[in-house]
Amino acid sequence: MSSSLLACQLRQLKYLVSANSYLKLSQASYTVSNAEPAGPVLVTPIPGPKSKQLKSELDQVQNTDAVQFFVDYEKSYGNYIVDVDGNYLLDLYTQIASIPLGYNHPRITKVLTNPSNLSSFVNRPALGVFPPADFVKNINESLLSVAPPGMNQVITMGCGACSIEHALKAAFMAFRRKERGGKPPSREELETSLFNKPPGNPNISVLSFKNAFHGRTMGALALTHTKWTHKLDFPSPDWPIASFPSLRYPLEDFELENSKEEQRCLAEVEDLINHYQKRDNPVACVAIEPIQCEGGDNFASPQFFQGLQDICRKNNIALLIDEVQTGAGTTGKFWVHEYFNLRDPPDLVTFAKKMLTGGFYYRDHLRPKEGYRIFNTWIGDPSKVVMLKEVLKVIKDEQLLQKTTDTGKYMLNKLIAAQNKYPHLLSRARGLGAIAAIDFPDPQTRDKAVAKLRELGIHLGTCGTSTLRIRPTLILEKKHVDIFADRFHQVLKQL
Amino acid sequence: MSSSLLACQLRQLKYLVSANSYLKLSQASYTVSNAEPAGPVLVTPIPGPKSKQLKSELDQVQNTDAVQFFVDYEKSYGNYIVDVDGNYLLDLYTQIASIPLGYNHPRITKVLTNPSNLSSFVNRPALGVFPPADFVKNINESLLSVAPPGMNQVITMGCGACSIEHALKAAFMAFRRKERGGKPPSREELETSLFNKPPGNPNISVLSFKNAFHGRTMGALALTHTKWTHKLDFPSPDWPIASFPSLRYPLEDFELENSKEEQRCLAEVEDLINHYQKRDNPVACVAIEPIQCEGGDNFASPQFFQGLQDICRKNNIALLIDEVQTGAGTTGKFWVHEYFNLRDPPDLVTFAKKMLTGGFYYRDHLRPKEGYRIFNTWIGDPSKVVMLKEVLKVIKDEQLLQKTTDTGKYMLNKLIAAQNKYPHLLSRARGLGAIAAIDFPDPQTRDKAVAKLRELGIHLGTCGTSTLRIRPTLILEKKHVDIFADRFHQVLKQL
Repeated sequence: MSSSLLACQLRQLKYLVSANSYLKLSQASYTVSNAEPAGPVLVTPIPGPKSKQLKSELDQVQNTDAVQFFVDYEKSYGNYIVDVDGNYLLDLYTQIASIPLGYNHPRITKVLTNPSNLSSFVNRPALGVFPPADFVKNINESLLSVAPPGMNQVITMGCGACSIEHALKAAFMAFRRKERGGKPPSREELETSLFNKPPGNPNISVLSFKNAFHGRTMGALALTHTKWTHKLDFPSPDWPIASFPSLRYPLEDFELENSKEEQRCLAEVEDLINHYQKRDNPVACVAIEPIQCEGGDNFASPQFFQGLQDICRKNNIALLIDEVQTGAGTTGKFWVHEYFNLRDPPDLVTFAKKMLTGGFYYRDHLRPKEGYRIFNTWIGDPSKVVMLKEVLKVIKDEQLLQKTTDTGKYMLNKLIAAQNKYPHLLSRARGLGAIAAIDFPDPQTRDKAVAKLRELGIHLGTCGTSTLRIRPTLILEKKHVDIFADRFHQVLKQL
Repeated sequence: MSSSLLACQLRQLKYLVSANSYLKLSQASYTVSNAEPAGPVLVTPIPGPKSKQLKSELDQVQNTDAVQFFVDYEKSYGNYIVDVDGNYLLDLYTQIASIPLGYNHPRITKVLTNPSNLSSFVNRPALGVFPPADFVKNINESLLSVAPPGMNQVITMGCGACSIEHALKAAFMAFRRKERGGKPPSREELETSLFNKPPGNPNISVLSFKNAFHGRTMGALALTHTKWTHKLDFPSPDWPIASFPSLRYPLEDFELENSKEEQRCLAEVEDLINHYQKRDNPVACVAIEPIQCEGGDNFASPQFFQGLQDICRKNNIALLIDEVQTGAGTTGKFWVHEYFNLRDPPDLVTFAKKMLTGGFYYRDHLRPKEGYRIFNTWIGDPSKVVMLKEVLKVIKDEQLLQKTTDTGKYMLNKLIAAQNKYPHLLSRARGLGAIAAIDFPDPQTRDKAVAKLRELGIHLGTCGTSTLRIRPTLILEKKHVDIFADRFHQVLKQL
């Protein structure tokens, strides 16, 4: 038996012990990564025969074109995802960047096996009407303990798209309140609002950016401009769409050129705001990702975001920063926009994915004035907040923001080294913490590289047109990066 | 100590035993209702001091106008909800109709404490790309085992609104596929789709009904026409809205008159379809609740729904039946539309609430042709499917559809009796299974009755303008109805 598989067995044993007996884990003697296999273990092609069989069964009841392989989540551990055919892959994609601490983290398992948490998982409430006794304590110790600086209002939601949808509603309400100048809504507004008609349902818009991704429900999708598969055939409001800066990397080598590009984009934002104002479809909110992820891992500078906030302030427009993929410590700060040194906090910050629950933070002036305005039956799920509380404790206890910063730098240097060695294959290496990306000359070469990396046990994603998307857990270590770099060079040599 | 509270202690003991030792529960010797208190127990006004304190704390971070009281979900059991001040209320509202088997049902608790389910709760996947090994088995044994007759395609979603949003997208895609007549989308369609512009984002619409409620995200909200608090200030597409039949009750006494009203509404539907076709905003989908819930518990006849389906078939329009509040056995059949004897199955059936997971069933011709078309990161949560599987087993083992039918009839008869006794206060008693409603002369009197019932330990909801909304669990028994009826008469006497 290989040492890798022996290590796995040890890992499983530790897992069972920790899950069943509430073992007090000492950080000094035990880390998740010690219990992982020493490296990827491949025993079949991927997808293997069992994955293929399950996929054909699932295909009887839904389109499965997006299914890559079926996963043995019981065996998956730490940074390693294990498929149903017994392949152990180093996971640098982590369920589309939604797993903060890897698989089966013993401290999260303990949350589930702790009898005092049982009721949260069994009894899902209508949270906005009948919240659980421990809800205030739990959000204080979780969501509010990591609130973006200057923000102290928060509401949970079920997923990222719902977070965007309801954050927009908060912006719309605030915009119309200001337009009314303190007066209550008119009878005509109240009555027309029931029939999708102005003035109750006004013509107001949200400005978004080319290549943005904010979700797939109608309001969120109106801000999304990535691939036709996300958009084609779906009716969508006519809302303004500005250019997102297209920068050259490394950013520090092209400051002047990049700054010019950012000024061009900001001018476009102002033009669009004026244009839609004149068309009686004024902009109530600007929505932006602090790093465009699905659209190709596109960065912009703190100056760009400062400029954007200035434009919003000048025009009384709410600034929504969508941190669904970038938040939860992914970049070494808890929220990316903390890098931007904004004059004021953003008006709205949305989250989901690694936060386990959707939701959004908002500033006081965005707070609804009436009940039931931002509402649905579930409004998220308190059991996810219970789990998040422990995730955040682990992030703090294990200093994972610092670790992610360090490991991220190490990863970026590996990408730059590869790019220097293979300049005909690689360009635009970029990254921050657990966000890292590099471009191939075309989608075909990129896809070939991803497939070959998987054959060597490295599981990765893609974004943009020809970008490799790297999204590890927050517990990634340099030894994992070394494994990735070794396999990456093997693949680049062959391309 | 009262016998009520003794019964509670017994209940808690049984709960602990069943939760911790996987006690084999024999149906003959043990039912949830035996372990409930004998009746409501009130020890403070509601909200009590602890609820008020928690509400004022929560109000620091979000609007809490909709919060009624804080709940001790550990102590809540079966049909009794227990607030943080120690009041035991008979719950006939059940978290806005979202709790199928009451609180802390021992068989659901066992799902959570079963170690082999642990991984499902700890590792939430990106379900559309990396599904868990047991997912096919679990949806076969849950969602597909209760699929509406003639429907065998299903996808999960996070909540009711997302279910509607994505069901509409399936309808839009099918509509446009038919318009293209088998040809692939044009380059212009693909390119414009990224910018919210036709032809890629076409002008197509969804027909909905006055007083309908389908959710609060932009697409779902465009179909919702209940209260201004749900709608005001939010931009909304101009989509057609038809009258929902306004019937007289009891239905069997007003067949001719009601049939005329339904014909009027169907004619309006046809007119609107023609009108929006002429305005180049053709109707791709008709969305309707089989019983309008939030809008006032409004029923329509099987003939109405048959007629609506005929109109949809004639015009190549998808018929979406939204069973978010009515499904999961609530009315004695698993889906309300099974009462309608439709010629064909509906094209789309959405669910959430008592199903624990959102999602929708759809017919083959609504199935997307490409991957990533109906998609998001989470696409629901497999851990909810694991719980649903057990809920459905309990429904079957305990014959809860029959029980709900019987208890529902008993409830309706009590409402009719009250209405006969207090004709100046009550009208339009109506119901089916666990859906029951009765109207007061005005919202003020209705709200007074609800408040007084709560003081007597009966927890209820409202809907429409002046309707009392009764939404118990599926494990409600006649003895609970008797308690309600007793308190109801006490209140009616005082009004």
